[in-house]
Amino acid sequence: MHAAGPQQALTGTLAGDQPVHSVACALDPCSTPKAHLWVAFSSSEVLFAACELGVFDLLAEAPGPLSSAAVAAGLGTSPEGTELLLDTCVSLKLLRVDTGGGRALYGSTELSRRYLARNSPTSQHHILLYLAKTTYLCWGHLAQAVRDGKNQYVRAFGVPSEEVFAAIYRTRTPVRALSIFCRFDAGWGGPSTSSGTGCSGALARECASLYPGCYVTVFDLPEVVRTARRHFPVLEEARVSFREGGGLLVIESLLDADGRGPLTTQLFSLNMLVQTEGRERTPAQYRALLAAAGFTDVQCRRTGGPYDAVLARK
Amino acid sequence: MHAAGPQQALTGTLAGDQPVHSVACALDPCSTPKAHLWVAFSSSEVLFAACELGVFDLLAEAPGPLSSAAVAAGLGTSPEGTELLLDTCVSLKLLRVDTGGGRALYGSTELSRRYLARNSPTSQHHILLYLAKTTYLCWGHLAQAVRDGKNQYVRAFGVPSEEVFAAIYRTRTPVRALSIFCRFDAGWGGPSTSSGTGCSGALARECASLYPGCYVTVFDLPEVVRTARRHFPVLEEARVSFREGGGLLVIESLLDADGRGPLTTQLFSLNMLVQTEGRERTPAQYRALLAAAGFTDVQCRRTGGPYDAVLARK
Repeated sequence: MHAAGPQQALTGTLAGDQPVHSVACALDPCSTPKAHLWVAFSSSEVLFAACELGVFDLLAEAPGPLSSAAVAAGLGTSPEGTELLLDTCVSLKLLRVDTGGGRALYGSTELSRRYLARNSPTSQHHILLYLAKTTYLCWGHLAQAVRDGKNQYVRAFGVPSEEVFAAIYRTRTPVRALSIFCRFDAGWGGPSTSSGTGCSGALARECASLYPGCYVTVFDLPEVVRTARRHFPVLEEARVSFREGGGLLVIESLLDADGRGPLTTQLFSLNMLVQTEGRERTPAQYRALLAAAGFTDVQCRRTGGPYDAVLARK
Repeated sequence: MHAAGPQQALTGTLAGDQPVHSVACALDPCSTPKAHLWVAFSSSEVLFAACELGVFDLLAEAPGPLSSAAVAAGLGTSPEGTELLLDTCVSLKLLRVDTGGGRALYGSTELSRRYLARNSPTSQHHILLYLAKTTYLCWGHLAQAVRDGKNQYVRAFGVPSEEVFAAIYRTRTPVRALSIFCRFDAGWGGPSTSSGTGCSGALARECASLYPGCYVTVFDLPEVVRTARRHFPVLEEARVSFREGGGLLVIESLLDADGRGPLTTQLFSLNMLVQTEGRERTPAQYRALLAAAGFTDVQCRRTGGPYDAVLARK
């Protein structure tokens, strides 16, 4: 307990650190290095809301920086809310502001032009909306997911967990799949090119659409393949085998050897708990899984980014 | 576009950085310094879920560190989900783990004992549950709040915004109010002590309960005072005046002079947009408000924490 009475605090000056400083700190004992945790979700929502409202699109397409009033008029949003959102985006370095000449003019950053504007070839717009509209809501049920040990689709969306694959693979053009596909573009052009893809078949369809002569196999768990066939009836299931010299490239987030990090990978595991099923694995766990499937040459490589690479060959 | 074809990627080794490293990075173009934004909400939920499930209480009250199986048994939660949650709490430094002797045993940290365990006098348990159950859900409607320029209580909870004061002041023992109150303890004991409090009257009630002889005035906006009277009918409204030498201590988060930061203060403004009304202010804006109310001596002081102090005297 402090010895300072209320009168002393109320009539004291702010010259010293006590008692006013201590009062303000007492209001928020979580003002520790971890204080950001309890407001972290709001930073995510600033990004999501700006995406959803089209802030990054408007600014990327404008001939020059715009005032917040012009942004509000362009998006049909409230002037006060828009100004708050834009200024917070600037603090998060998602936008820039030029306050020269007495006016605040907002513009894109390289990051927002490349990854947040909808029309950029590397746009993350749709995955961010998915995170905002699906993942964020599922995570609101994390405590229940830990109680139950299973995903919370029923609570979040009324979709039974048995139909979770149909639910999560409902998008037909996943950004991530297209992003991988584009990296391999040079090798896909020939009429007899053959390759395996999985998931809902969106990548297969995109490939078939771009290269009509190419033959594509959807390779995934039986229930995923069934979902893919319902979505894309023209595709036919085929048995997949690995020829000598062929391999399997697994793009996943690798846990540390002791399974206790990195944090992002642990969050991905919890994401599977609330949204789907499964969990991230250590390199040793991948080696064991792949060895059981007949792979003898397994190499794990950390990328420094959120996703790592495992290359396995028979 | 990379020149590497799929066969080259699939059969290549992982000895060099290309092409596997570039593929993995391509999967996640947002793996920039701002990448954390799109998963930030999940870190908040780890803290909230662990609070809600009683993880910090169980570990604070246990005679020693516990295995994840013991925590799961104690809380009635799933073994897999509990282990994931505990390990992620360790990465967030909310818990500690001892892996000596081949077993992982989880224990409290000073932070979790002081601020997260329910029975600590400085516990933030209830405010964290409020953030989890109310604030998090409101923020899911940020885009609409920016469109409308007003709070989203109706969308989030079916409560009209006109009744927002009744809705947000429904708690009778706000942690924050008690926290201020305790700091002034030494001055409140005498039978003739008099002081002003506001909000729902929870602080006033707590004060009256601890010090039956003390006279307390609830001082706030008329509508808040009306709400307080409904909640605590024994309290009587009284006119509040500032005597010579008296003062007003405002505990708020101060915006920078140009209104463009700090980020936490901007997020508090957006929080008011989605949850209530109003916004944070710069020191100059507080001075103007207080001058209009007859205060001549206004001192603003930054604390370095999320809340700052403004002391005003007539």
